[in-house]
Amino acid sequence: MNRDVLSTLSIPRKFYEDLFRETDGLKKRLERKSALGLCSGRVLATIFMEPSTRTRLSFQFAMTKLGGAVVDFGPLESTSTAKGETFEDSMRMIDGYSPDVIVVRSKLEGAARNAAEICSAPVINAGDGSNEHPTQAMLDLYTIQKTRGKIDGLKIGLMGDLAHSRTTSSISYGLDKFNHVTIYYIAPPELQIRSEVASLLKNVKVEKTDRYENVINDLDFLYVTRLQKERFNNTSEYEKLKGSYQLNRTSLSQFERLPFIMHPLPRVDELDPDLDKLPAAKYFEQAKNGVFVRAALLRRIISN
Amino acid sequence: MNRDVLSTLSIPRKFYEDLFRETDGLKKRLERKSALGLCSGRVLATIFMEPSTRTRLSFQFAMTKLGGAVVDFGPLESTSTAKGETFEDSMRMIDGYSPDVIVVRSKLEGAARNAAEICSAPVINAGDGSNEHPTQAMLDLYTIQKTRGKIDGLKIGLMGDLAHSRTTSSISYGLDKFNHVTIYYIAPPELQIRSEVASLLKNVKVEKTDRYENVINDLDFLYVTRLQKERFNNTSEYEKLKGSYQLNRTSLSQFERLPFIMHPLPRVDELDPDLDKLPAAKYFEQAKNGVFVRAALLRRIISN
Amino acid sequence: MNRDVLSTLSIPRKFYEDLFRETDGLKKRLERKSALGLCSGRVLATIFMEPSTRTRLSFQFAMTKLGGAVVDFGPLESTSTAKGETFEDSMRMIDGYSPDVIVVRSKLEGAARNAAEICSAPVINAGDGSNEHPTQAMLDLYTIQKTRGKIDGLKIGLMGDLAHSRTTSSISYGLDKFNHVTIYYIAPPELQIRSEVASLLKNVKVEKTDRYENVINDLDFLYVTRLQKERFNNTSEYEKLKGSYQLNRTSLSQFERLPFIMHPLPRVDELDPDLDKLPAAKYFEQAKNGVFVRAALLRRIISN
Repeated sequence: MNRDVLSTLSIPRKFYEDLFRETDGLKKRLERKSALGLCSGRVLATIFMEPSTRTRLSFQFAMTKLGGAVVDFGPLESTSTAKGETFEDSMRMIDGYSPDVIVVRSKLEGAARNAAEICSAPVINAGDGSNEHPTQAMLDLYTIQKTRGKIDGLKIGLMGDLAHSRTTSSISYGLDKFNHVTIYYIAPPELQIRSEVASLLKNVKVEKTDRYENVINDLDFLYVTRLQKERFNNTSEYEKLKGSYQLNRTSLSQFERLPFIMHPLPRVDELDPDLDKLPAAKYFEQAKNGVFVRAALLRRIISN
Repeated sequence: MNRDVLSTLSIPRKFYEDLFRETDGLKKRLERKSALGLCSGRVLATIFMEPSTRTRLSFQFAMTKLGGAVVDFGPLESTSTAKGETFEDSMRMIDGYSPDVIVVRSKLEGAARNAAEICSAPVINAGDGSNEHPTQAMLDLYTIQKTRGKIDGLKIGLMGDLAHSRTTSSISYGLDKFNHVTIYYIAPPELQIRSEVASLLKNVKVEKTDRYENVINDLDFLYVTRLQKERFNNTSEYEKLKGSYQLNRTSLSQFERLPFIMHPLPRVDELDPDLDKLPAAKYFEQAKNGVFVRAALLRRIISN
Repeated sequence: MNRDVLSTLSIPRKFYEDLFRETDGLKKRLERKSALGLCSGRVLATIFMEPSTRTRLSFQFAMTKLGGAVVDFGPLESTSTAKGETFEDSMRMIDGYSPDVIVVRSKLEGAARNAAEICSAPVINAGDGSNEHPTQAMLDLYTIQKTRGKIDGLKIGLMGDLAHSRTTSSISYGLDKFNHVTIYYIAPPELQIRSEVASLLKNVKVEKTDRYENVINDLDFLYVTRLQKERFNNTSEYEKLKGSYQLNRTSLSQFERLPFIMHPLPRVDELDPDLDKLPAAKYFEQAKNGVFVRAALLRRIISN
C-alpha cells in the first residue's frame, strides 16, 4: 500500500472527507489531552532543506502531542550535506534508521518523490521547490470546510505569486476534486498560474485576472500568497511587483462585503496587520488547523 | 489568572519562598527519577532569538525530566524570520499550536511582554535585551538561600557591566523584596547600574563604587557578570574596560576572607579558572540549580 | 566503574562479544517496538562541535527508540561558545544538568577525554579530530561479524585518507583484539596510517600498499574512507589526490571476485553509486547497524 503523500493530484475527495472527520475527532481528544498514546513509541524524522517554521513546528507539535518522538535532520550546515553528501545518500541513511514517517522539504522540484522511491518509510512532501505542498492544501481545505460547512459550489480567489507558489498548485488540485468550484487566479501575467498546473485541472471552472478588485465581490474566499523573493532571479522585478497586491483596511474599505481572507503565512507586506481583527481574517485559524490536520494525517499513516 | 513570568519587579517575597520549597522537593524527586509523570503530555515551546546555552538547555532538561516534551523554534536562519516574518506573527502562530508554556529570548527590550500580550499560553521571559531575565534571578536567589540559609540581611556585590546586564536588573528587583539587604553596585561610571533600574528599588540599601577592593571585605556574595561585547556599539571601549574586573587567585590573595563568588555564566576573562576549586566559588552550583528551579517553575505554571 | 567510551585501544574482545549479542537481542525488540521502556526517564545529551549527520542522528534514534529523551547542545553559533565560553566550562555546565550519558564530537584530539575528566556522567567519544571514533568501530566490527560470522582470521583493507581518519584508527585498535587478522593499509605515502597508530598494534599483521589493485584479491573486506577535505591545510594537495582511490563498476570489473565493500559514509567521489546494488556493497547496512549498536551501548551504560 502506498502511504506516501507527495501530491494532491491523485488524492480523491473521499480522502479529504475521511481526514476532516478524523481531524475533528482528534482535535477534541488533543484538547482533552487524551490522544497521547496514539503514536507512543513512534518516531517522525523531519528533514527541512529550506527554511521553515510553520510546517516544521506544526508537524513537531502534532507528533509530540500524539505521544510520539521527533528526530530532526537539523540545519544543513550541521550535517553531512556540508561534507558533500548527496540527497539520495542522506535519505537512504535516514530510512535505514527506521523512522515511522519521513517529512521532507527541499528547494528542488521532485525531491519528495525521489525520496519516496528510495525510502521504505512513508514520505510526506512538505514542499518541493515551486511544485507542491500537499499538507498545506489539506489544512487549507479543512479551513474552508469548517468556515463555510462545504467546499462544493464555492468561488475561491488565489492571489499573488502563483507562478512560484507550490501552495496554490496543491490547493488547485485539491479543489478540483470537489464540485462546481470556481478558481479565480489573480496575478499579473508574469506571475500567473503555470500552464502545466492549469492544464491538469479537470473539474473546476478557471478564471484569470490581474486585479482582485474585478472579482472580489464574487468570492467566498480570497487566498493571498507571499511573493517568494527567494525564487526570483531578478531583485528589481521583485521590488516592482511587491506593492501591487497589498491588502489593508483602506484598500478594502471600498467593498461592501469581504470574502474570507486566507494566507499560508508567513506574510510580509501583502496583508496589513490592521486586517487581523476582522471576522473575515481566517489566516491564523488556518495556521492553527495545521497541527490538527497533520496529527490526523500522521496517525492515519502510522496506523495503516 | 496571570501565569506569565516577565519581570521580577512585581514578584513578591512569598512567591520565592514557595518556589524554593517546591524546588527542594522536586530536586529530591528528580534525583530519584520519580518526577517523570508530572508534565507528561505537556509541551514546552522554546524560542531563542539570541544565542543561549544555559537557559535553553536548562529549560529543556527541566521539561524533559518532568516527562514533558520540548519543541524548539530553531535557529533564526532556519525559520520564517529569514523570510521576513514579524515577531508578532511568529508568536501568534506558535501560540496557535497550543504549547503549555512558551519560553522566549530576544535582543529587544519588552519582547517577552509583547509576546505575552499576543499569546494565550503562559510566557516566560528568558531574557529581553538589557532589560530582564527573571528566571536567572530566581536561581540566583535560590543559590544564595541554599548557601547562607537566608537572604535577609545579606550584603551582595553586583560587579561588571551593570549598564547592559539584564541579570543584575532582575536580581536587584528580587533582592528588593527581602529585608535589610545591601546591594553594592561595582562598576566604572560608564557601566554603572542604569538609573531607571535603581529608581525602582524601594527596600534595599544601595551603594555604588568603581573598585571591588573597596567593599569586598563587607560582602557576603560577590556576583560577577560578563562584559557583554555584543551590546557595545564601540569595540575599543569594550577592549579598554574588559581587563578592569578580572578576578584570579593573585588578585584575591590580598583579602583575608572571600565572599561567595557567583556568576550567571558564560564567563570570558572576568573569572580565572584557578578560582574554580575554591569553596567560595558557587557559580557552577548556581548553574546546576537552574534545572531544578526552572523545573519547579514549569510545574507550578502547568499545574495552575 | 569507568563507563566512558573514549577509545578502542583499551576495549577487550569480550566487550565486543557481549555488545554484539546484546545488539542482536535489542534489534529484535526494537523491530517489535517492545524495547521502549528500557531508557524511559533517561536523558542523553548530544554535543556536536563539528558537522555530523549519521552519528548524531543514529544516537538520537537509538535513545528515542529506547523511550529516552535527547537534549542537543545545538549548532555552535546558537550557543555560549559564540560568546567565548570554553569547552571545559560548557562541559561542566552540561554535566551539572545531570544527563545520563553525554555524547561529544569535537575537531580537537583529546576533547572527549578532557570532557570525561570534567564530567561525572559517562562520556562517549563521537569523534575527536583525527584521533578516534570508537562507536564507529563498534558498528563496523558488528557489520563484519554479521556478514562473515566471524572476525578472526579475516583480511581487511583500509583505504583512503588514513592519515586524517579517526575511523581507521579506532577500527585498527578493535581488529587488533581479534586473532589472525591482517590489515592492509592502502594509501599513498603522504596519507598512510600514522606511525603512532601502527605502533600501538600488537596482534594484527600489518601490510602497506599504495594500490588496492595489488591486494584486492586477498581481501575479505575493503573499507573505503573519504578524503577529509576539512583536515587538509592545502587544497591543491586535496585535489591532486582525490581521484586516486575512486571505485566504480568499471574499475572493479577487472577483478574476478570482490571483497565486501564498507564505508563509514558520507562518501563523496570515492564510491560510485553504480556499486550500491552489488551484493558486496555493505555500507548502507553498516550505517543502519549504527542505531542498533549504539542503542545496545546506551542501554548497557545506563543500566550499569
